[in-house]
Amino acid sequence: MMELYHCVSARSFRALWMLEELGLPYQLHMLPFPPRALAKEYLALNPLGTVPLLIDGATRMTESSAICQYLASKAPARQLGVAPDEKAYGSYLNWLYMADATLTFPQTLVLRYCFFEPAVRRQPQVAEDYERWFLGRLRAVEAAAQSLPADKPYLCAGRFTAADVAIGYALMLSDYLGMSAQWGPATQHYWMGLQQRAAFLRSLDIEKQAALAQGVDPIPSPLIRP
Amino acid sequence: MMELYHCVSARSFRALWMLEELGLPYQLHMLPFPPRALAKEYLALNPLGTVPLLIDGATRMTESSAICQYLASKAPARQLGVAPDEKAYGSYLNWLYMADATLTFPQTLVLRYCFFEPAVRRQPQVAEDYERWFLGRLRAVEAAAQSLPADKPYLCAGRFTAADVAIGYALMLSDYLGMSAQWGPATQHYWMGLQQRAAFLRSLDIEKQAALAQGVDPIPSPLIRP
Repeated sequence: MMELYHCVSARSFRALWMLEELGLPYQLHMLPFPPRALAKEYLALNPLGTVPLLIDGATRMTESSAICQYLASKAPARQLGVAPDEKAYGSYLNWLYMADATLTFPQTLVLRYCFFEPAVRRQPQVAEDYERWFLGRLRAVEAAAQSLPADKPYLCAGRFTAADVAIGYALMLSDYLGMSAQWGPATQHYWMGLQQRAAFLRSLDIEKQAALAQGVDPIPSPLIRP
Repeated sequence: MMELYHCVSARSFRALWMLEELGLPYQLHMLPFPPRALAKEYLALNPLGTVPLLIDGATRMTESSAICQYLASKAPARQLGVAPDEKAYGSYLNWLYMADATLTFPQTLVLRYCFFEPAVRRQPQVAEDYERWFLGRLRAVEAAAQSLPADKPYLCAGRFTAADVAIGYALMLSDYLGMSAQWGPATQHYWMGLQQRAAFLRSLDIEKQAALAQGVDPIPSPLIRP
């Protein structure tokens, strides 16, 4: 059975959501945030100390969007992946990579320099620079969301895919950080739709119950404002 | 024919290198850096103003590691991709995503806050934070590089793949930024090997000649120290 190491509301949520969309069996290990400091025994499993860590037999993965693409390929009949012979393959890959490299990393600067660093090391200018940077890149999502059909409001291939999970998490984090009023209306609408998915809601509940059962604070870390 | 928009030494170099490894035909458009300010007509093609932009018929891609994976799938006989039914598939994806989200973005903070911002907006603390952050994550490359066979010094699947191109560019940028003395020895050795590839050397030369022919400064932007 696959094992997933996860912190509440961290980008490892992408992997949890994908597992629930696909209905694959897995064991969920909740870690306190940040695991590097609060769960030092985890460093034996993942020396980087980061989440996610997905273990699937001999395969070990630490990149959340890569895990989305990998899991989609484990259950091809579910069609949460897009195959190289489909027209949308390039678009699918672009959204998956953009979700983390372009739309999540800048938000971690806001988290770090607004909330996680001690007061003396905070950098409001840097947090502002990268909030603006994120919102600039988010125009790509707005442009795409504006032309989605109402009955299939998904980013590529005319169906819900791993790309929606990966981008959806970037929006979830941005929403937690209080930025959603600055998104375009089509992005807001797209995110509202994603939040109604049964697997998304189930993932939030599973995360919370597992945190409580495993002695981890169930509050999403961006919401823990010192 | 595919079209690639590229700035000297920018992460779009990944796409150029992949095209040369695969021997696929393409047209190369060189842009001054940063194109958002110096080539405003480019915004009509890519409203984000970022490079790369790869146009392949109706497919338009802007994420450099995604382009590596996409191009590998266009020439499957060359085996620069790893297929889902290969044991190394998860590892392949993880390196590709890690290359940009984890190993390139932090370096852009060093570039921005050490070199590109005007003096009054520079942030040496942030540049130092993310140089350290990058070097911490680079331990994953060092650990992998330590166990590579001498005759096949590639990150996954026992052969040269798009993952080596994607990670190789992150090392190239770090080398330009003067960090390579802080890498582990296996990483240094791995990067020395990649630089000897004919397609890598050809890509550097093509980039330089195209820049000169198209009236763009051929000096890698990290080396333009104000």
